[in-house]
Parts: sequence; C-alpha cells; structure tokens
Amino acid sequence: MNHKDYSDQIEGRNAVLELLESGKDINKILIEKGEKHGSINKIIAKAKEKKIIIVEKEKKQMQEMAQSESYQGVIALVPPFEYCDIDDILKEADNKKEDPFLLILDGIEDPHNLGAIIRTAETAGVHGVIIPKRRAASVNSTVNKVSAGAVQHMKIARVNNINETISKLKEKGIWIYGTDMNTDTYYYNQDMKGPIAIVIGGEGFGISRLVKENCDFLVKIPMKGKITSLNAAVSAGIIIYDVVRQKEN
Amino acid sequence: MNHKDYSDQIEGRNAVLELLESGKDINKILIEKGEKHGSINKIIAKAKEKKIIIVEKEKKQMQEMAQSESYQGVIALVPPFEYCDIDDILKEADNKKEDPFLLILDGIEDPHNLGAIIRTAETAGVHGVIIPKRRAASVNSTVNKVSAGAVQHMKIARVNNINETISKLKEKGIWIYGTDMNTDTYYYNQDMKGPIAIVIGGEGFGISRLVKENCDFLVKIPMKGKITSLNAAVSAGIIIYDVVRQKEN
Repeated sequence: MNHKDYSDQIEGRNAVLELLESGKDINKILIEKGEKHGSINKIIAKAKEKKIIIVEKEKKQMQEMAQSESYQGVIALVPPFEYCDIDDILKEADNKKEDPFLLILDGIEDPHNLGAIIRTAETAGVHGVIIPKRRAASVNSTVNKVSAGAVQHMKIARVNNINETISKLKEKGIWIYGTDMNTDTYYYNQDMKGPIAIVIGGEGFGISRLVKENCDFLVKIPMKGKITSLNAAVSAGIIIYDVVRQKEN
Repeated sequence: MNHKDYSDQIEGRNAVLELLESGKDINKILIEKGEKHGSINKIIAKAKEKKIIIVEKEKKQMQEMAQSESYQGVIALVPPFEYCDIDDILKEADNKKEDPFLLILDGIEDPHNLGAIIRTAETAGVHGVIIPKRRAASVNSTVNKVSAGAVQHMKIARVNNINETISKLKEKGIWIYGTDMNTDTYYYNQDMKGPIAIVIGGEGFGISRLVKENCDFLVKIPMKGKITSLNAAVSAGIIIYDVVRQKEN
C-alpha cells in the first residue's frame, strides 16, 4: 500500500477520536503494533462500530508515514479536506438564525497559528473561516491536530482574492473589521455586534494595505509594554471573544 | 571555547536585538560566517557600541550549538535567567502606582505556550508572572524567542508552592481569579478590577484542585461549539485582556 493514494491524513489520538466522532469519511485507520491501550482501544472500538478498516503497522513504517513527530501511534487516512464556499458559510448563519460572524485570515502562514485560530473560532461560535489560496497555510494534518479537531466542525472557504470576497460580503450587509496599530479605536470600545467579519493579518506584516482600506472599521489592541505585537492566534482570540462578550451583553 | 561555560543562550535576530536593547548582561555574541547583512549588521553595530565581544563561527559549529532550528545565524550567550521574588513584582506595581496585576501559571508545560503568555502579559501591562519550580516549563531560549523578547522586560518569579504564594498574595489584599469550566460566571461578567492575580491552568488538566479551592473567584470562557477547550495561551490572552478592558472602562 502506498500512502500517496490518500490525499490527507489525521494524526494523534485526540485528533483521530474527534474525527471519528465528527462522522466524516475515513478511508482507513493505521495503528502502530504494540500500541493497544487506553485511548487507542477507544479508537479501535469506535472504528469497528463504524466498520472502518483498521490496519496494524510496524513502528518503522508508521514513523515514515507520519507528518508530525507526535502521531502517538495512530494515523487516519481521509479524503482531502473539503473547503466550502462563502454561501455555505452564510447559510450556516442563516440556519442558526444568527447574524453572520465570519473570520477572514489575510495571510496566516504558520499552521500552528491557523490551527489555534480555527479552534478559537469554533468555540466562539464563528460560522466560517475564510483563507486565501496563496501565500498562506492551508488545512493539513498539523492544522487539524493543533485545532484539537475543530477543523472537522468548522466551515472553511479558500478564496482567490480576499478583496473580492470582502466586496461580496459587504453587498450582503456584513460589516468588515480589521486590526491596525495606527488607529485610535480600541477593539472593546468599538461596537462589533450585528453581521460582521473580522480580518486577522498574517504573522509578519499584518493586514495588507488594500485589505485594510476595504475594512469598514479598524480597531487596535492596547499595547502597554515594550513589545509591540502579539502572537497572531492570541490577538485573534482577544478580538473574537470580545465579539462574543458584546453579543451577550 | 566550550559553550557549556555559559548558562543560557538567546537565539534569532529579533530576540538578540531585543536583548541588546534591554540593557541586560551579554557575555558574547556569536555570528555565523557569511551572515553579514541586514539585521545582523544592526546587531553587530549595537554590540560594538556596547563593547560586547563578537565571535564569528562556522555554520557547522553554530548549528551544533543552536537549541532551535531557526537561530538565524546569531546566538547570544548570557548569564542564566534571573528570576525575581514576589516582593519585586509587588514593588514594580507600587513604583508604577498601579493596583498589582499578576499572573500565576499553574503548570504550563509547553515552552511555546509559556513564551506566548509572557508576551501577552508584557503587552497588557502585567507586573509579574509566577511559575512553579516543578512540573512546568521554565524560562529558556525557546521561551525567550517565542515571547519576542518579552521575558527580558517581565518580572518572573519561580516558587516552590503555588498555594503558599496565593496565601501570601491574599494577605497583601490581592484577589485571586481562576478559570474553571464548572462555574456559571463568564469572565466578562466578573468584576476583575483592583489588585488581582489571574491563575491560568496547565495544558492537560487545567488548574489543580487545591489551587482552585484557594481562588476567590472562578470564571469561565463561554464554549459555543463542539470543542471543549482553548489553547492555553489563547485563553490566557482572552482573560488578561478583559482585565485591561475593565480597567480602562
């Protein structure tokens, strides 16, 4: 068997368990020989229940296939991640009878940041995440693992052009909020209720100039020390959860 | 020269630049041969200005010494990180004529999370971070780098017993806030102004039982999706910055 037959793989015990619980398609689950204990047994039981093929493999083979060091004796082979389109995201909000709450990631390059942001988006009730096709991390097994499996539950759209997407969202009555150091408005003083999309910039350079110009509102996070920026996933979390706070209050 | 003569090292261009700007002691700066450009030149100029010894080394030697893959051609050798004690942190708040704003990390094990949390604490104006001596990450070059150099500007105390520290802080009139899934109070509805310490639990099991019992208030972050927890650095950022919001409003 050549693992290149499969387009994607999910690694690690919690990530594979999450995957099994999500009900998504799984081609096959590979278990390392001798790893039959604890959560691995739980994975085996769930997989049998769902009639998914389990294959035992030698440690050496598993290590060759694994994309991360911490695959923890289990790899699930799955069809490639299915991105949705913008309309699917808007429909999701509509089905829940909620104002659309979207996240646009303008050039997040680190899969760890992408995973942590998708995890935060999922717990905050964001309806969908929009990422660009170029110069950005896409959803892979690392992103899935860092997200604690949140990518399985989140609508993610991959678009050619962030600015065109923003125009389309504006036409639908969605307000666009971006973060920028050079504004005077702190995020917690800015009304972010209603139908909104939050734009989070990339690790190196933040939001690109044109995208910034297309935002309806720019907000900043107060910086009181000597360091002038936050980790991208942390700043995303701060803004996203302030939206949650504002919606609840 | 044996690099084991030195107790700690700081790696990467931005981290070494931050270190130079912090005015802290540097024993020596090692530069990889052929890496004389851009920010490396800036490091060399600053180091010369401060009369710090610069040593050029072959790529192979640098790679052997580096503790991270992304040392970017520069390693600074420094005296071991100097932890402070609790009184130094309280004095820092006193000097700034501010209510003490402390962070207690109850068992953060991942140096990336520790670095990201210290970075957030620094930008939020936290006066000091308290970490336990055992079963937790301590400050090393990875933590420094992930923190974007924030460890150079942050008072960090390492204590034997978190619960004894909490008792001491309570005696000084500081209120202790912990996060717990099993409380009804959302963090943004809880008054967190005044002299406070926020307890953040470890990645695996959150705050330990006894520490939780010693907290004056427990708060939770709303979880609206299927995933039941956030990345430790993200949840720390959300709570820390809500304190900032509350203090400003």
